[in-house]
Amino acid sequence: MNVLIVHAHPEPASFTSALFQAAVEHFRNLGAAVEVSDLYAMGFDPVASGADFNERANPDYLVYALEQRNGVKSETLRDDIQREIDKIKHCDLLVLCFPVYWYAMPAILKGWIDRVFVSGVFYGGRRIFDLGGMRGKRALVCATLGGREGMFSAEGIHDDLHALFRPLLKGTLGYTGFEVLDPFFAYHVPYLDDAARGEILSQWCELLGEIDQRPVMPMPFTDEYDTNFERRVR
Amino acid sequence: MNVLIVHAHPEPASFTSALFQAAVEHFRNLGAAVEVSDLYAMGFDPVASGADFNERANPDYLVYALEQRNGVKSETLRDDIQREIDKIKHCDLLVLCFPVYWYAMPAILKGWIDRVFVSGVFYGGRRIFDLGGMRGKRALVCATLGGREGMFSAEGIHDDLHALFRPLLKGTLGYTGFEVLDPFFAYHVPYLDDAARGEILSQWCELLGEIDQRPVMPMPFTDEYDTNFERRVR
Repeated sequence: MNVLIVHAHPEPASFTSALFQAAVEHFRNLGAAVEVSDLYAMGFDPVASGADFNERANPDYLVYALEQRNGVKSETLRDDIQREIDKIKHCDLLVLCFPVYWYAMPAILKGWIDRVFVSGVFYGGRRIFDLGGMRGKRALVCATLGGREGMFSAEGIHDDLHALFRPLLKGTLGYTGFEVLDPFFAYHVPYLDDAARGEILSQWCELLGEIDQRPVMPMPFTDEYDTNFERRVR
Repeated sequence: MNVLIVHAHPEPASFTSALFQAAVEHFRNLGAAVEVSDLYAMGFDPVASGADFNERANPDYLVYALEQRNGVKSETLRDDIQREIDKIKHCDLLVLCFPVYWYAMPAILKGWIDRVFVSGVFYGGRRIFDLGGMRGKRALVCATLGGREGMFSAEGIHDDLHALFRPLLKGTLGYTGFEVLDPFFAYHVPYLDDAARGEILSQWCELLGEIDQRPVMPMPFTDEYDTNFERRVR
């Protein structure tokens, strides 16, 4: 098994980093080939721009997705993007470890997706969801946050966390064809003592050990939708 | 009226940029004091890191929100952050113009929020929603996308776009106390001809002219929640 683990926390001694390291060790101990993209350590540039393309289909007017397609065809994507694409293509399992900032990914990870999940490889036309470029691969999200679980229940002041993360879980990972495993959320992290953190770390390692039993999130089937991606009448 | 308009598109000649420019002109013509944050033009750095603090409460271990609070108190936030905070504090209306990347903001704008919406000014403890630091100000989102409106209906393959944008609309703008106006979404933009784009631009200008009539999104009232932010039993 080939595993790519992406990490996006600015503090190498953070609990999120410990979850990341635990995943790396877990899969290495299993004999898997583990690659990592530690975005802060790499100084990854998250800003999508015209500079992402060593050759431009249209140097005068930037349509980012069109230049992505051109860059894929002509193999002229910027090196840092191409390297990440190659890592993802090579993996069977993608793991994303990050702290929740504003009910979403930190910008450095959002920009990794903006720049790396290129049109023409990850998706294109009707090649989404069950026809997406990443079909056959699995993806697992591991995210830490300050809020308590009850704040995100139907009775909490925030929305359900699965719903808040639909842009990533469904709109990005599911959309590009990944089989999306039920995500792992570590709540209230900054306020927990070492024992409570140790307990979460154990749960995470247990999940990783039983990853084949982890529930998969349901995603749309493209053949249930018409050419406008509206649901077919049966 | 003081207006801050934030813009996050990499192509200055894009339709999103035209919507941004139209908003700038609209409010200037009204005699408002308009400030802009054109993030690509500014080369804004979206990566939250320890370098955001000229002085650290704890130089050995980074807890980002704690350092934000320290930076606010000791007035040692990095200049580029403090400048944006000052602009927002000064405004009565915040407008965000951006293209939708992966059902969310581009990383450069996400990072503007990660770094600028600092703990201690925008929120803190129970100072969220109706008690948030930005109460009394309004916020309006203007976002462009490739998808057609029908793809996002209850019958479409994607989710409702208002739901996908809850992390921004509710979890960020509402959470920090802004009165959040019903957002403006421009659909199918890359595929539209000039006439259709002109029509959208007119709708946008009409909205701006009638902004006081724009519906406000409902947000939670903190006094309906207990100290754990779970709903009080009545």
